[in-house]
Parts: sequence; structure tokens; C-alpha cells
Amino acid sequence: MDVAKIKEHIAQLARLDYQDMYLNDFLLTWDKGDDEVRATFVVAEVLRDLRQKNISSRIFDSGLAISLFRDQSTRTRFSFAGACNLLGLEVQDLDEGKSQVAHGETVRETANMVSFMADVIGIRDDMYIGRGHTYMMEVAEAVQQGYLDGVLEQRPTLVNLQCDIDHPTQSMADMLHLINTFGAENLRGKRMAMTWAYSPSYGKPLSVPQGIIGLMTRFGMDVVLAHPEGYEVMPEVEQVAQRNATRSGGRFTKTNSMAEAFSGADIVYPKSWAPFAAMERRTDLYGRGDFDAIKALEKELLAQNALHKDWECTEKLMATTREGRALYMHCLPADITGVSCAQGEVAATVFDRYRTAVYR
Amino acid sequence: MDVAKIKEHIAQLARLDYQDMYLNDFLLTWDKGDDEVRATFVVAEVLRDLRQKNISSRIFDSGLAISLFRDQSTRTRFSFAGACNLLGLEVQDLDEGKSQVAHGETVRETANMVSFMADVIGIRDDMYIGRGHTYMMEVAEAVQQGYLDGVLEQRPTLVNLQCDIDHPTQSMADMLHLINTFGAENLRGKRMAMTWAYSPSYGKPLSVPQGIIGLMTRFGMDVVLAHPEGYEVMPEVEQVAQRNATRSGGRFTKTNSMAEAFSGADIVYPKSWAPFAAMERRTDLYGRGDFDAIKALEKELLAQNALHKDWECTEKLMATTREGRALYMHCLPADITGVSCAQGEVAATVFDRYRTAVYR
Amino acid sequence: MDVAKIKEHIAQLARLDYQDMYLNDFLLTWDKGDDEVRATFVVAEVLRDLRQKNISSRIFDSGLAISLFRDQSTRTRFSFAGACNLLGLEVQDLDEGKSQVAHGETVRETANMVSFMADVIGIRDDMYIGRGHTYMMEVAEAVQQGYLDGVLEQRPTLVNLQCDIDHPTQSMADMLHLINTFGAENLRGKRMAMTWAYSPSYGKPLSVPQGIIGLMTRFGMDVVLAHPEGYEVMPEVEQVAQRNATRSGGRFTKTNSMAEAFSGADIVYPKSWAPFAAMERRTDLYGRGDFDAIKALEKELLAQNALHKDWECTEKLMATTREGRALYMHCLPADITGVSCAQGEVAATVFDRYRTAVYR
Repeated sequence: MDVAKIKEHIAQLARLDYQDMYLNDFLLTWDKGDDEVRATFVVAEVLRDLRQKNISSRIFDSGLAISLFRDQSTRTRFSFAGACNLLGLEVQDLDEGKSQVAHGETVRETANMVSFMADVIGIRDDMYIGRGHTYMMEVAEAVQQGYLDGVLEQRPTLVNLQCDIDHPTQSMADMLHLINTFGAENLRGKRMAMTWAYSPSYGKPLSVPQGIIGLMTRFGMDVVLAHPEGYEVMPEVEQVAQRNATRSGGRFTKTNSMAEAFSGADIVYPKSWAPFAAMERRTDLYGRGDFDAIKALEKELLAQNALHKDWECTEKLMATTREGRALYMHCLPADITGVSCAQGEVAATVFDRYRTAVYR
Repeated sequence: MDVAKIKEHIAQLARLDYQDMYLNDFLLTWDKGDDEVRATFVVAEVLRDLRQKNISSRIFDSGLAISLFRDQSTRTRFSFAGACNLLGLEVQDLDEGKSQVAHGETVRETANMVSFMADVIGIRDDMYIGRGHTYMMEVAEAVQQGYLDGVLEQRPTLVNLQCDIDHPTQSMADMLHLINTFGAENLRGKRMAMTWAYSPSYGKPLSVPQGIIGLMTRFGMDVVLAHPEGYEVMPEVEQVAQRNATRSGGRFTKTNSMAEAFSGADIVYPKSWAPFAAMERRTDLYGRGDFDAIKALEKELLAQNALHKDWECTEKLMATTREGRALYMHCLPADITGVSCAQGEVAATVFDRYRTAVYR
Repeated sequence: MDVAKIKEHIAQLARLDYQDMYLNDFLLTWDKGDDEVRATFVVAEVLRDLRQKNISSRIFDSGLAISLFRDQSTRTRFSFAGACNLLGLEVQDLDEGKSQVAHGETVRETANMVSFMADVIGIRDDMYIGRGHTYMMEVAEAVQQGYLDGVLEQRPTLVNLQCDIDHPTQSMADMLHLINTFGAENLRGKRMAMTWAYSPSYGKPLSVPQGIIGLMTRFGMDVVLAHPEGYEVMPEVEQVAQRNATRSGGRFTKTNSMAEAFSGADIVYPKSWAPFAAMERRTDLYGRGDFDAIKALEKELLAQNALHKDWECTEKLMATTREGRALYMHCLPADITGVSCAQGEVAATVFDRYRTAVYR
């Protein structure tokens, strides 16, 4: 990694059109143009290069980065803190409490009040279907209005750190991993299996599989989404994936067979998630405060999960992938059979072989 | 805002006498001389100018700003964090827990132990009448002694972020808003109505109205304090306001009629607070741990509030102000009728008209 | 303190061998060579000098310092935050929750995930005998492996902020205080009494007395450890102290008499701690989740403590020290008789006389 490479990356950046990213947010990857997605990857590479060469990347002299997490997340919290620190921003946590979802006047007021020094606002709100993205749009509108009215000196950029629809920081990092592994020019036609896998825990968010199929289909890849019946993701996101595939000359297909998805795959991403319909029901029950029904639903979902314990990324399945050596991916933490649980998403030997790559 | 203006402000600063503010605290505005108050405004303008011109205002290369909040406050917390960040200090929260009020040895020890790198200590302690200011004085004494004894390399400055008596960061910001709205030279004779208003919640601190009458009376304004009988503020602060008014050639009067206060007013500040006598009783009951009596008192106070639902800043009342266009002010969050509560401090249409100005 | 002195210190540093401290951790003082311990003192002096001369000591342009506290500690938390701030690192807290002790895969994963921007990881885990140090070793191994595998761009340095065995930041600071008080060249032969003292609270960690006897015996001092029968510290650490004393030409002895320890002492360090054997039992009971037995043990230990109320650092005892003027030390907070408790570790008049020195 030498300085010439950094300069080459900067030259690449100059050829891309990403003007609209200024004074704007990053909420869903499919809201961003191809040049904008590429520009993000190039900037990420430049920052990595600068850090490796020990060249300062503090572009802010002062400024706050506000983090608003509606659930606990060690990984995302530290990624966000690290990224902000790299740019010279200090993270300040805003904890509104999990349960209370603010609306209207309160959102407008809070967003303006906390943003006096904010250059970035990172939000994670992935718990309830139909909520997270809507909330982020409300905050975005509030700070935009505050900026136009002269309440705020600067327009803070919202970054989606996982909502009910997309998890762009995760899917973009995963994509960058693919680019670095295969080379951007070699992705066309690569087969990627985004498949459901069994987990003994319940209610894992859909934003990871949705983010993956919504992004990976833009690069001409052959993306297959596999899950048992009843584990459908949001139809709107499937449509996004379909449109992307058509436009990029790739493919987007669905199957209810893990074996079919793995067969000949170059990349596998086996990961548990909750059924979309069940999550909609849960959001509804929370809205009505019906905790007995929520408990019953949880029990029902665990029982439903348990019907699909055979959805595990085993050595046998891995052997059916391209030359038996597909790249295994996971957003972590993985449920590893015999390690973190009795039976889980992935066999211990598979995970062990890919640990370093996954961590990276 | 150009650089010449910044230089002009700095020249103004040079003509003011604010030597005593070095190695000193900011606890009550009436402890500060007129030049010191003015110097604070000028510095605030300079910092705002610098930020607008994107000129660095990091005057600290390193250093901590310790925040000690005895209650939750999003607004003040973020203002403090933003201000410290602007100056180059990193905020470190000290949470002692709400209930336990430290005294004597413990205050002395803690104050010294946490201050090794502290350049600023911001304290908010507004819950109990007779406590907050006293506590701040104890901390101030402890760090002063620590500095003199050579325990601390530097003497951290205490900033009152709201106590039981005053809320100087709020009242100073409100005053700056008036200066920017009317011009400092036009404040003399302006009529300001600091009035109680009905809120369905209970026990709001007195420090805001006290801070306002204690500060605004210094500028030759005609300040009227209005509240129902039984909602008196601390007599000592009324005396401060009276003295200030006499000295500045302004006026300080009291009334039990909201209509009288609004009539012909240039500025209105309608805001709920708890009666001083009741807060004294509550402090006493907390001291004795008599939680049944506290509950009874709360009920009694809510009933008392409910007798004064007509104390609302309505369009009708606003029409009686100077040319029907008095400046509406509030420290936020406001209880807005039909928005944040069924009936509150201010009509929704009034608040809407002034939202941007209030936010600013 | 002038610049020449800073240069002299830097020259001293150049003559010491501390190469192995790079890309390495600081877990136990007895793992470090004499030159390494000395180098740490010299660097501390240089940093103090720089701060006094108002010369920037930010050696990091960006970077996180991760703090992982398994119990609450205001003092250590602020010391760590201050130290990191002085070097240019921003502290990010990782709160895993007290009860849950992570192992294996989870430690490995978490350590790697949070360390993307981490230059330092400070861990405090002093609650359970046999746990804290082991946990730190696991984290150290995880980040070392992550660094070798290319997962981490840099190898974060682990700093022990108190474990079940040692409390190196405390003992090193105490040692520096001795060096500054007596002069490094005058420590040889000085008698130091590390003695147990009565406290009405229970379960204080052993890491302070262990850290003291493990470090102070390296400088040719005459260290005596005093405690009632049943309050033994870890035998391994006593062996470390014995070895150190032999090697340094000092002495390490034990006694069950506070009077004997104080007699002729140049330095006294009276401080409560729990019996090692009882702490082992407690760890075991926690492991089994036997909370009734834990309560019974607590009661038993408080009763055992109460048998030794005469272990107090009184004026009478102080009078028996060298010229009646031994240096009193404590890691704070001290249990002061008649101040913070009815009867405690030290008489109020003794503490008062040494407050400034202890604070410093």
C-alpha cells in the first residue's frame, strides 16, 4: 500500500458523480446511485490506506457524532465510534430508552436540540417492522428543516446503522470484502447464496438478508435467496433486488432449499432471521401492549424455527459449493454448533476455517 | 459575518474588565459584574462567528470536561457536550446516582480525584430547594483547596448547568436571543412578562423564572413576574431582581394576573413552575424519606395546578401584547395544548408561529 | 521544572532497555523487568513535566482507548480517561454487564470487533479470585492473534486497571509517590508496613496489598505485611515478594501484629481486605449461583472483621513509627473513623494530617 495507490484512488473519486451525497443522508443503499456506492468504497479504501501509512485522516477539527441506538449493539457501536474518531468527531450517545418511540413535535425538537454541534447522526432502530426507517425519515426531515430555518449552522448527515429495512453499513462492508477477495472486475456472474439458517434464538432482524439482496444484485452477480416457507422477507425489497438484477445483467432467484442455494455457489451467507409476517404481528402487539400475546408469539416462533434445524451450514453442504471452497460470510455473532449453542447456523469446523476472513 | 466583525468583538472584549473570571466559577449571574456578563456575550458571539467562518476554536489541546447531572437532561447535556467539543475538551460523565447526595469528605475527595485532567466541571443539581447551589459551593471549595495544595495542576472552572436558584446558561442564552432580536441598545424600557403557565406535570424547577428575573432586570427592562397566588419564587431572588432594576433604571413588578402581565408586553415567557414553599416541603420530606407524604404532596400540587388551567398563552392573550406581536420565549420542552398534552402552557398556533425563533 | 529536566529524563530513558514493552501488555508488575518499571516512572515524570510546562503530549492523532470495567470505579475510570486524553486517545466504554463473564469464542470475537481503532484496552476485573487475570490473558491472546492474522491493523496494548492478583496502576503510582517523597536513591532499607485495617464493609479486593508487596520489595526496602490470622493473601504473590526482596537486597516479613509492623516504620499503608480463602469460596458460590450461601458468607465475614476493630491506624500507633512521622498512604477511599463510618481504618486526625499528600 503506497502513496501512489492513494493518489490513484483519489483520481478514481474525481471521475465519479457523488455531488448529491453532500448535505444528504445514507439510509438505504438502493437510494444511492452506482457512482455513489462506488465513491463510498473508494473513500473507505483511501481511509484504510491513510491509516496503514499512518497519515492523519482527521477531516474534522471539532464536531460531535451523535449515536442513537434503540437496542444494544457492541459491534456497531464500536465501529461507529472508531469511524467517527478516525475523522475527528467525538461520539455522544443519546439514549432515549428502548420502549418509548418519539414522534412529531418531540422528534423535531430533540433532533434540533442535540444537533447544535452534530456533523453526523448514526441511528440504529431495527426492532419493529415499519418503524425504524420511518423514524429516520422523520429525524432527517427535522434537521433539514432546522438547517433551512437557520436553527442549525450545519446539516448533520444521518447514517442508518441498521433499520427494519436495510443495514447499509453491514452490506457495504460485506461488499467491500467481496471486492477485496475476488476483485471488482470478477464479480459478474459469481453465485451468492443468501440463505436462512437455524438458530435457537428468536426474532433476528431481516435487515441483513434484505440489505444483502438489495446491494449484491447491483454488481451482475447471481444472487439466490433461500429460506424455509414462512420466512419470507419484505416483498418491496425483493422487488428492489429483482430490478437491480435486471439492470446489472445479474440474476435474482428464490428457493426453499438450502442445498439448491449452496450448489455451485461462490459465496455463502447462512444466517438466521425472523419471518416478516411474524415481525409485523409483533410490532402490532407491541403497539397494543399485549404482552401475553407477544410471549405466545415468541413461543410459536421458536417452535417454528425448531422445525428447520437441518438448515445448518455443514461441511457436507460446503462440499457442494464451487470446488468445495465457497467463501463463507457472516455478520457476527454467529450461532456455532457445539460452541455458542447445541445446534446453530454453522458447523464449528466450517466457522474455524473462515474465522480470520470473517473477522476481517 | 466577516473577519472584521470578529476583530471588532475582540476589541470590545479588550475594553471590558473580566479578570476575576479566570480561575473562578460561574454559578449565579448576579455574582458577576456587568462587564463580566457582557464579556460572556461577546465571547459567545466570537465563538459563533468563528464556527460560521469555519475557523478552529479549539483552545484546549487536551483536557476533560466533567459533567455531573443529578437528573436527566438531553438538551443541557448536548449543549454542554457541544460547547466543550468546540473548545477542544472531551466530556466525561460522572454519575453518582440521583438519590445519594454526597457531603463533606466524599465531595472533597471525589472532586479532587476526578479533576486530574479537568478544565471544566459542569454540574446540574436542580431537584431540591436548598441543595444544588450548596453542593456546587462545596465542590468549588474542594477544587480550590486542591489547587492551592498542589493536588491539582490546574483549577477547573465550575459551571452551573442549573441549580435550585439559577439556570445561568439558559438565562444568558435567552438574553443573547433578546440582544440579537432587538439590539442591545434598544432593550431599555422593553416590557418582559415572565409568567407562570399551567402544565399537567408537576414540580418543574424554579430556576428558570428566577434566572430570568435575576438577569433581565440588569438591562433597564420593565420586567413583570406573574403567577397565581401560592406560586411565589424565592424571596432572595426577588430582592436581587428589585436591586438590579433600581440600579439599571428599569422596573421589577409582580402581579397575580396573566392578562395584566401580557398587556403591552414586548416579550412574553410563559412557563410552569412549582411553588417554592411546596418544594421546600418536598426537600424536607425527601430528607426524612417520607415517601407517602411525598406522594400526597404531589397529588395536592397537581390539584393546585389544575385550578389555574386558564393560565395559558392563547392567541387572545397574545393579541393584547405590543402590536399583538410580542416575542414568545420558552426554554423547552413546552407543554403545547393539543400537541404534547390536552391542555398546557401555550396554544399550538402560537407555538407554531414562534417555533423557529424558539429553537434558535 | 524546566525543559532541561525533561531532556535529562529523556536521556535517562535512552539508557534503559524497554524494547519488549512495545506491542505488549502491562498486566502484573512482576512480569516487567527493572528497566521497564523504571522506564514507566521516567515516562510518567516526562508527561507530568510536559503538562506543567503546557507542552502538548498528544502522541496520538486519533485512536480509541477502550475501557472495560466489571465494577464501578470513579477514581480509576477518571484516571484512565485523563491519561488517555493526555495522549490523544478517546475513551469508549465497553459495558458487558457485571454478572456475565464471557469466554472462549465470545471473548475472541468481541476483542477483535471492538479493537478496530483501539490503541489501548484498559480492563478492571477484580471481583472474583481466579478470574480477572485469566480473563485479561484471554483478551490479550485474542488481540495478539487478530493482529497476526491481519484482522487488526494495530496491536492494542492491554493495561490492567486492577485484577484479582495485582493493581499495577495503583502500586506504580504509590511507588512514584515514595520516589518523589524520599528520593529513589534513599529507598534502600526503608521500612514499609503494609497492614490490614478494620473496615465495616466487606469483600475489599486483595489486589492492593498484593500489588504493594509485589512491587515495593524490588527496591531494597524492608517490607512487612501485617494482618490478623485468616486474612492471608495469595501464596504465589508472597513468593513473588520473597524472591524480589532476596534479589534486591531488601527484606520481606510477615506478622499478625499491627503494632509490630508499625514500630519504626518509615511508611505505613493500613487498608482493609478480604481473606483470600473466603474470596475463593465466594467465587465458587457465584459459579454455582448459590446466593443464600453467599449471603451467609457475607454475614460470616462481617462478623470476622468485627473481631479485629482494634486494627486501626491511630495516633498512638503513628507515634511508634520512625520519629513518629511515618508517611501514611492509602489508595482511597479510606474508611475514616467518625467521618465516613463509626469505626474504620484510620483515625480522623491522622487522615487529616496526610490528606493533601494522599490526594496528591
